[in-house]
Amino acid sequence: MAGQVSGPEIERLVQLLARVPGLGPRSARRAVLHLIAKREELLTPLAAAMEVARDRILTCTTCGNIDTSDPCAICANPERDRTTLVVVETVADLWALERSGAVKSAYHVLGGVLSPLDGVGPDDLNLAGLVGRAASGEIRELIIAVNATVDGQTTAHYIIDLLAHLDVKITRLAHGVPVGGELDYLDEGTLTAAIRQRTAF
Amino acid sequence: MAGQVSGPEIERLVQLLARVPGLGPRSARRAVLHLIAKREELLTPLAAAMEVARDRILTCTTCGNIDTSDPCAICANPERDRTTLVVVETVADLWALERSGAVKSAYHVLGGVLSPLDGVGPDDLNLAGLVGRAASGEIRELIIAVNATVDGQTTAHYIIDLLAHLDVKITRLAHGVPVGGELDYLDEGTLTAAIRQRTAF
Repeated sequence: MAGQVSGPEIERLVQLLARVPGLGPRSARRAVLHLIAKREELLTPLAAAMEVARDRILTCTTCGNIDTSDPCAICANPERDRTTLVVVETVADLWALERSGAVKSAYHVLGGVLSPLDGVGPDDLNLAGLVGRAASGEIRELIIAVNATVDGQTTAHYIIDLLAHLDVKITRLAHGVPVGGELDYLDEGTLTAAIRQRTAF
Repeated sequence: MAGQVSGPEIERLVQLLARVPGLGPRSARRAVLHLIAKREELLTPLAAAMEVARDRILTCTTCGNIDTSDPCAICANPERDRTTLVVVETVADLWALERSGAVKSAYHVLGGVLSPLDGVGPDDLNLAGLVGRAASGEIRELIIAVNATVDGQTTAHYIIDLLAHLDVKITRLAHGVPVGGELDYLDEGTLTAAIRQRTAF
């Protein structure tokens, strides 16, 4: 199927692009042709942006976010509320919450969730850092914003046990009907949570 | 929705990747996180491969293929049959035919098809080059391998008219049932063509 069509350089670019999530061998080939057709507008700036990313992106040693500075822009921002930490699984979740604009505090990226089936144990997550931050005395509330999956909830309970000795309030995201969601399409668990945790108008 | 989350460098990479066909704003973000997580294995070689592509990929002035040499490896290959030209719309089509291994001759890439609705006229295609090659006396057969669309067929007939004065045999790809295809899922046009152009066992 592969077959070397037009030079090892192009084939190598196709094969590397095919490993980017969201692209496969076929779409990578289409992407390469598009990149070459748009050399000045897209290929050149994209290659440059990748070099910048390769050379300058760091993982924040405080929260686990990625940025070109350490501490990251969020941790370094004096206007952020430093008494609350939002605990997320991944940087992607952090970005999603940032886009919502709902978080005015700092984050803590676990780097995953506990998953015995996948061989992910407590030592694989950034839990030591979380305990350290929570024990610093500065943190008053920890919002556990892990995914509403079994592994996510297991991880949440593990964190609650881990921090039980500290005087830190631990909260979690509300369950309920997504904004814009239609009841007919929601699962029973979500509807049950939405009824139980109903709020006054 | 966008919102600057973590430094202009990352945001710029996300926005450029989102313009790659097959990726959108959301999958570009996922891709960036994956690239940064796989910095050594993926990001670094991908950035380097893009630089090579940017600097070294040329369009073959003979056939319109892209390669790191001009003429391209196919045009320069002495084992290719130079009496037959396969006329395709795009480099992607050329690559698809090359993967099949069915073509032992050279190609001619039109760079598109005639499409009055999209404002694509004869001057927008590499037709002058095709006439020149066909008139050289070396070419005995032209296989028109454009897509089986209205615009593709219009273009095929335009080429036939254009080359009518030359002593060149013009053929086209067979219509029929795709190998592995199920009759039940095929359109009437394909089935009609498959019946009409049936072949002896």
